[in-house]
Amino acid sequence: MTQLTATQTLIETEALIIGAGPVGLFQVFELGLLGIRAHVVESLGQPGGQCAELYPNKPIFDIPACPAISGQQLTDNLLQQIAPFEAVFHFNQEVVSLDKQADGRFLVLTNTGTRFLTSSVIIAAGMGSFQPVKLKTAGAEAIEGKQLVYSIKDPEQYRGKDVVVLGGGDSALDWALALQPIANSVVVIHRSQKFRAAKASVDKMFRLCDDYQMQFLQGQVSELVLDDERLVAIKVTGSDGVTRRLQLDDLLVFFGLVPDLGQLSQWGLELHKRQVVVDTEKFQTSIPGIYAVGDINYYPGKKKLILSGFHEGALAAFAIKEQLQPDKKVHLQYTTTSPIMHQRLHVEDPMKEDDAA
Amino acid sequence: MTQLTATQTLIETEALIIGAGPVGLFQVFELGLLGIRAHVVESLGQPGGQCAELYPNKPIFDIPACPAISGQQLTDNLLQQIAPFEAVFHFNQEVVSLDKQADGRFLVLTNTGTRFLTSSVIIAAGMGSFQPVKLKTAGAEAIEGKQLVYSIKDPEQYRGKDVVVLGGGDSALDWALALQPIANSVVVIHRSQKFRAAKASVDKMFRLCDDYQMQFLQGQVSELVLDDERLVAIKVTGSDGVTRRLQLDDLLVFFGLVPDLGQLSQWGLELHKRQVVVDTEKFQTSIPGIYAVGDINYYPGKKKLILSGFHEGALAAFAIKEQLQPDKKVHLQYTTTSPIMHQRLHVEDPMKEDDAA
Repeated sequence: MTQLTATQTLIETEALIIGAGPVGLFQVFELGLLGIRAHVVESLGQPGGQCAELYPNKPIFDIPACPAISGQQLTDNLLQQIAPFEAVFHFNQEVVSLDKQADGRFLVLTNTGTRFLTSSVIIAAGMGSFQPVKLKTAGAEAIEGKQLVYSIKDPEQYRGKDVVVLGGGDSALDWALALQPIANSVVVIHRSQKFRAAKASVDKMFRLCDDYQMQFLQGQVSELVLDDERLVAIKVTGSDGVTRRLQLDDLLVFFGLVPDLGQLSQWGLELHKRQVVVDTEKFQTSIPGIYAVGDINYYPGKKKLILSGFHEGALAAFAIKEQLQPDKKVHLQYTTTSPIMHQRLHVEDPMKEDDAA
Repeated sequence: MTQLTATQTLIETEALIIGAGPVGLFQVFELGLLGIRAHVVESLGQPGGQCAELYPNKPIFDIPACPAISGQQLTDNLLQQIAPFEAVFHFNQEVVSLDKQADGRFLVLTNTGTRFLTSSVIIAAGMGSFQPVKLKTAGAEAIEGKQLVYSIKDPEQYRGKDVVVLGGGDSALDWALALQPIANSVVVIHRSQKFRAAKASVDKMFRLCDDYQMQFLQGQVSELVLDDERLVAIKVTGSDGVTRRLQLDDLLVFFGLVPDLGQLSQWGLELHKRQVVVDTEKFQTSIPGIYAVGDINYYPGKKKLILSGFHEGALAAFAIKEQLQPDKKVHLQYTTTSPIMHQRLHVEDPMKEDDAA
């Protein structure tokens, strides 16, 4: 846990949103319409989340009333829409702890030391952060980060080494091909003859195999052979049922990425697979005061659609308003006709001309 | 019920949407993405429903990613978005009957004689049609449309008459002021001193009262006095507890409008107040195969927001797809990345350049 300094101020707020993707941004809007100002924590350095990060210029076709809109344009439109509500963004930070206080509020801490005391937490963290799928063979965890890695920082450290690459996707083949001129030997192991990698990469690998400059084995790692905590060999059970022993210096595993809830999984929230279970009335989690909207939540019928996250955020906002003012009934006011809505949106009353009539 | 002619063709379809407001239009889109072509029945002469009808040029501020959009622009954008799916619209028609057939489909008939045989019905009828709030005093129903009316077609028929206007809203005061120069006498009766009508109209009424050209009574009608089926007087219990007798020729009632489900209320659907009860997984009503989306439906937490209707339509579409193909799992495909979605949307594959990389 991050060390707190004595000077670290405590931010008190009614609502803390985790995630500044499209749904987190629209959550700011729906809270703002009800007079609630939000703080937003985002692990990336800018708003927009997955769709601005992965497909900034590719059109999305199923945002209602936007026949085709890019991830970046969607983000820009939402930022314009929420501008009146002056949310405070905390970028490049991840929530590392959440503790319920005696007064019912939550003390939330980020990895950069920002501290919040908030009445409500809205998780809009999308798919969460992406983590590599791990090798499950016994002993793998003990050598992780040493001879067994899931990502490569500096290819030079494999110069002259005997390396084994596991996996059949683009990362596996790209790294195998990149290390082939550097390493002493490269063996690719994949459980099937079908590759998810680009055909050109697969073809190139098989050409190098034909020239004895690389080796491909169809099979799975059945054992890690250690000598005094050092990996010296692996046993590979081939598709022919035969188990072979293979000496090596390094084992590079590229089994793909899975979304990971990270710290969220430690909060005691009820989960369904890797999603946070919510009700469909308030989009509240199993912990009162903590809500979840967008791709991260689960309820029967859930589809991971941006437009569903918008709806979920709207209903969560009403629930939060009622949580903050339990004795006061919250009425739906329409943005087209309500003077209170116009005041909060900082717009001229568009009905004014009619009032004079 | 409308008489069927022998030549009346039967339209067979997988989905029939009732209502072409924004939610009905987006329902076309979500069904289209899943390969289902819809027919749409609409009581008005054009698409857009309430928001194009009531506020065509007033901005709506809470459509996600549309910081300010008029009802007409929203409708136009949705029409552009659904264009690839070639829905068939049937305007100026209302559904008058629905009968479940032996094969599980529904036979649906409109007041102009159009007949549908459909696997699913999606009610997207908004608030339904609007009906006047009725006067509940005994005997009112018997004289309705004669001496007691809820709307005025020709003000000239009140020339020289003694008329009583009930109500305190704009319609009541506007008609009272309009009839004052024509009628022999005009009495306005409203239960309180607070008016929902424009202040200018209220001021004008009180000025006319001061000049003895009009009369205002605070109170409620407690009895209709009939003579041989003719209304000759009413008894009005005033705020002072005194009951007065008032002679009159005509009684004009303007208590406002309430939404009315019309024929829908005859189908045996479970209702909550005047809304159709649905689940939040499929947005299916109490009758399997009939779905309800948008302002007309009810579930715990329901808010009458356009953006909620969009979400409801999306989930209803997936449920309908599963209803039509019970043995086939329906996977969510993203419009940004899925070639099938691009084919159905008639768009060039925006990922193409990446595929070549």
